Amino acid sequence: MEYRRMGRTGLQLSVLSFGSWVSFHKQIDDSIADELMGIAYDRGVNFFDNAEVYALGESEKMMGRVLKMKNWERSSYSVSSKVFFGWRGKNNKPNQTGLSRKHIFEACHEALGRLQVDYLDLFFCHRPDPSVPIEEVVWTMHNLIQQGKILYWGTSMWSGAEIMEAHRVAQQYHLIGPVMEQPQYNMFERYKMEMDYQPVFQNVGLGTTIWSPLAAGFLTGKYLSGFPEGSRLGMQGFEWLKDRWIQEEKTNKLRMLDTLAKELNVPLAPLAIAWTIANPNVTTAILGATRREQLEENFRALEVLPVLTPEVMTRIDEILQNKPTLNLM
Amino acid sequence: MEYRRMGRTGLQLSVLSFGSWVSFHKQIDDSIADELMGIAYDRGVNFFDNAEVYALGESEKMMGRVLKMKNWERSSYSVSSKVFFGWRGKNNKPNQTGLSRKHIFEACHEALGRLQVDYLDLFFCHRPDPSVPIEEVVWTMHNLIQQGKILYWGTSMWSGAEIMEAHRVAQQYHLIGPVMEQPQYNMFERYKMEMDYQPVFQNVGLGTTIWSPLAAGFLTGKYLSGFPEGSRLGMQGFEWLKDRWIQEEKTNKLRMLDTLAKELNVPLAPLAIAWTIANPNVTTAILGATRREQLEENFRALEVLPVLTPEVMTRIDEILQNKPTLNLM
Amino acid sequence: MEYRRMGRTGLQLSVLSFGSWVSFHKQIDDSIADELMGIAYDRGVNFFDNAEVYALGESEKMMGRVLKMKNWERSSYSVSSKVFFGWRGKNNKPNQTGLSRKHIFEACHEALGRLQVDYLDLFFCHRPDPSVPIEEVVWTMHNLIQQGKILYWGTSMWSGAEIMEAHRVAQQYHLIGPVMEQPQYNMFERYKMEMDYQPVFQNVGLGTTIWSPLAAGFLTGKYLSGFPEGSRLGMQGFEWLKDRWIQEEKTNKLRMLDTLAKELNVPLAPLAIAWTIANPNVTTAILGATRREQLEENFRALEVLPVLTPEVMTRIDEILQNKPTLNLM
Amino acid sequence: MEYRRMGRTGLQLSVLSFGSWVSFHKQIDDSIADELMGIAYDRGVNFFDNAEVYALGESEKMMGRVLKMKNWERSSYSVSSKVFFGWRGKNNKPNQTGLSRKHIFEACHEALGRLQVDYLDLFFCHRPDPSVPIEEVVWTMHNLIQQGKILYWGTSMWSGAEIMEAHRVAQQYHLIGPVMEQPQYNMFERYKMEMDYQPVFQNVGLGTTIWSPLAAGFLTGKYLSGFPEGSRLGMQGFEWLKDRWIQEEKTNKLRMLDTLAKELNVPLAPLAIAWTIANPNVTTAILGATRREQLEENFRALEVLPVLTPEVMTRIDEILQNKPTLNLM
Repeated sequence: MEYRRMGRTGLQLSVLSFGSWVSFHKQIDDSIADELMGIAYDRGVNFFDNAEVYALGESEKMMGRVLKMKNWERSSYSVSSKVFFGWRGKNNKPNQTGLSRKHIFEACHEALGRLQVDYLDLFFCHRPDPSVPIEEVVWTMHNLIQQGKILYWGTSMWSGAEIMEAHRVAQQYHLIGPVMEQPQYNMFERYKMEMDYQPVFQNVGLGTTIWSPLAAGFLTGKYLSGFPEGSRLGMQGFEWLKDRWIQEEKTNKLRMLDTLAKELNVPLAPLAIAWTIANPNVTTAILGATRREQLEENFRALEVLPVLTPEVMTRIDEILQNKPTLNLM
Repeated sequence: MEYRRMGRTGLQLSVLSFGSWVSFHKQIDDSIADELMGIAYDRGVNFFDNAEVYALGESEKMMGRVLKMKNWERSSYSVSSKVFFGWRGKNNKPNQTGLSRKHIFEACHEALGRLQVDYLDLFFCHRPDPSVPIEEVVWTMHNLIQQGKILYWGTSMWSGAEIMEAHRVAQQYHLIGPVMEQPQYNMFERYKMEMDYQPVFQNVGLGTTIWSPLAAGFLTGKYLSGFPEGSRLGMQGFEWLKDRWIQEEKTNKLRMLDTLAKELNVPLAPLAIAWTIANPNVTTAILGATRREQLEENFRALEVLPVLTPEVMTRIDEILQNKPTLNLM
Repeated sequence: MEYRRMGRTGLQLSVLSFGSWVSFHKQIDDSIADELMGIAYDRGVNFFDNAEVYALGESEKMMGRVLKMKNWERSSYSVSSKVFFGWRGKNNKPNQTGLSRKHIFEACHEALGRLQVDYLDLFFCHRPDPSVPIEEVVWTMHNLIQQGKILYWGTSMWSGAEIMEAHRVAQQYHLIGPVMEQPQYNMFERYKMEMDYQPVFQNVGLGTTIWSPLAAGFLTGKYLSGFPEGSRLGMQGFEWLKDRWIQEEKTNKLRMLDTLAKELNVPLAPLAIAWTIANPNVTTAILGATRREQLEENFRALEVLPVLTPEVMTRIDEILQNKPTLNLM
Repeated sequence: MEYRRMGRTGLQLSVLSFGSWVSFHKQIDDSIADELMGIAYDRGVNFFDNAEVYALGESEKMMGRVLKMKNWERSSYSVSSKVFFGWRGKNNKPNQTGLSRKHIFEACHEALGRLQVDYLDLFFCHRPDPSVPIEEVVWTMHNLIQQGKILYWGTSMWSGAEIMEAHRVAQQYHLIGPVMEQPQYNMFERYKMEMDYQPVFQNVGLGTTIWSPLAAGFLTGKYLSGFPEGSRLGMQGFEWLKDRWIQEEKTNKLRMLDTLAKELNVPLAPLAIAWTIANPNVTTAILGATRREQLEENFRALEVLPVLTPEVMTRIDEILQNKPTLNLM
């Protein structure tokens, strides 16, 4: 396993990590979670990702039970949670969602309880909350670090400007700013990682824990024969055509990627994951497997990585036609 | 003429202003420049925009000569320059372009000389320069303000994240940060103004001096009968189709806008300019006319402005289908 | 016993102190540790030095057991630990060594457990860690002070430039900077204390807790009859000669020092220790004896100290020929 | 010519530059200075180095006359001066040397006069001055930048700890810190560049303008047949032997370097200069030639640079046996 420093921090995360998302509790039970986390840990994974909203808290509870059973040294792994959506679904009351000091503070305590740990290594703002001053967010996260309840804080799905505003506020009040982001990043979603965050990477540093490296499964190739025919009754002629066009273009690219993968003699899914971690600004790509075979195939990304020579990367860019560029003139 | 505070500053700019761009010197001579600037000034325009690179310095020289002849009170107008590209064209040597302290410092002195003024009211970084630390840029602009050579400094074509990084640095060293941006903004170019800069407007304030409110003339309606058939011999079938599609979609929207304009009984160009200044985050839209008639038509945007009721704005959004939105889930 | 303020802090340490290093656990058992620490405490020693890596944690555990048995007033002594190397030897995983927030945080908790104390008086970064931003180190140490888990933090084997960088960061964020260093310092190792740290002593203050005042035993005189003939088979003529030369030069100096000691009628080892603490920038010299007689001879340094008149110091410098000087031209 | 950013600044300097040192005025007259500076400028050199003390001011006067005659665009080159020693030689009165605000301020004005320029691009503290608080130095340099009299300030022959102390003070008062150093650096003088400044390069950035890349001519090979027999009557047997040993070791290394140069089919002097600029932390190496042929041979370093493959660099290290290393254990 390769380990990378998370941005400019001293924390080292395995370049592939394991997340529970919504799959935990809903699709798998404790014994499968135990098996998958065990495989991951033995393969060198040292980061387990979670959030209050995943399966409305049940995902964290399940991970907490597994961690307790496993009894690994606490310093040998890092565990995260995320705050924003609450865990009560439609029953959230005011202050049980969002990024107010009250909800961040309470969400942290509740996550510690569900995960049965004394501190979270990483704690994320799951989304920006335009209704709360960023000052309040930065202060609260800073205070949680001071209290020893979390070690590093970061954001998820924030824009570069929002992250930099958090750093400006941290600068103003002499606080600890956000050090990692959890963005979506894959072959079809490149703008934030490859354009918007560039001044953040360059000026203040930013680790990234990538979700959806397989584009919600699209890059496993399961739509190679085309998108399922959804109901487009509500769409007017113009819209329908545009939508159709986008899907056909995407499926077309997928077919070309699949051909390239066959030529390189590697499966498509690990190729797509390897492409993600080939970006040096990626700290770790989070795998969300629900079956042993699936998880083990995903780990093949480590073998595939050396296949991604500059030439192969160029060919992929030629297929994708979506590399963001900065036009200085 | 309506005047607006430039962001959170105390400076008031006319909501329509006048820029020379490359047209000066190349397309028009001193007498036409004199005529156009006179009309603008008489209509209440108090901001004249320029840059070192426009016509490689000749644009500023021409504007300088006109300002000298006119002999208006210096306090009755504001004048700008922009630094980045140098004015020697291909003969630039190292440090004669970019945003090093040396070039900003020397470019400011040279612009003062060409424009024949003692100070610039606004001084812009014409582009971001990723090879220079933003600290050096902020310090240098701050020092020029201290020396009385410029009054306000800002950016042009920077991302929200880059602007916020400048503010973070200003915060750190207790310096004067950038207070205005000169972005492209029009019905077909909305992302930066309506999405990327939102946290900047909200958290630190930002005036905007808009260039290309007519999308390089496209919104005058001159392409209503379709794009000119350019050479697409080099494009393969797939690309050609996509390109074709985008142009047809755009021309289609233009036709619908034209229909709406006729229904509202206003010409298309002033409608498009009025749409731009209807955004309260816009300080001023820069007009770049080269003929008297053209300039006077553009000024009709002021009459058109009240026509843009919430209902009309909604109809325009329905035509454009490009309002940027933030997906929180 | 003489007590000195540790740099510009208010903490007073005995000018001779006691350290366990690797000798604990390996060379001596609990009863000898108990005897030696008792002698030291009775002689007025109020600082006991330790580190997570000494005997892989066993040294701290032994010292912890002795401190518990002795039941001295907690306020009557100071105890330290050091973080960097981890205590698992070759079994360290990522984040179980180095100066990341995670390891500093966890190492502190683990040291408190092994030493059976509620707080460490001194906590050292055992080495610089170039892969972690100094910001993260300073913030984490500051937070441990805020949490009441440590009282003072410092460094060991850092360069003057690294210590000043920590102070710059502390200045930037208004944090508590490092206040002591644990360098090697003896007659044959003078550069850091007498040259490199000078601007630190002068500008921000720095206490020093010296290790190896006897140059790993060399200054006890045990090599007076020459270095043991090591295997130099692998060295080529040139190298062998140079190495030989250096050793002979050093042994030669040692003989001259021994002659001087005899003339002054003091043993060599206490003379060498006294020479160390004669430097007013030294707060304390750490003794690492493993036998009662050895420890008691080392304490004679206190009697020898007045013998070190300016004249004697000059004679020692003439023998050593290694006083670092600053050449301004 | 290759250009490099000076540390983290935006200023680009040619990797080879031209310095007048003491040679100007004493060894050469205006016409030779004119010829050499012309050759350098035509080869792409854009940095001309000077100091108040070089030839007691005459060197700057000569360079000023040449610059005036040449009438190059001011933005096409950078020029420096250095303050510390004064220019009156033994006739310096109090405050006519050192780094007091009075002398820095007056030395700057005097250098501007001698060089006949409106501002210095670079201004160096020629040495540290322990008798002046670094605060006063940083403030004065900062103020000169604010006043537009200098663009960048730096140090010469300062230690890493002293440079970082300047940065700490700059941080404290929110001032512009030093951004470049002028150290000696060559094959026989490596400690500062390769060890002491490492945390400065890494944490705050530092450009370096190297003097004596040829070790005061030693690396031209003129001592290949051994050092001249100096008078060593005053030395005692022991000292004489050591001194002798050091010189023989150095000459021996020089012979091996000469053999390597012959094998690589390049002259020794350009090889030594190329070795200096092969270090990426070097911004520029200052050439101090007094004859056209000598200058042109030195420029051959640019051709030699590609010869310095990792393998050749390793062989050079094996010859020199002086690469500074950090022992973490």
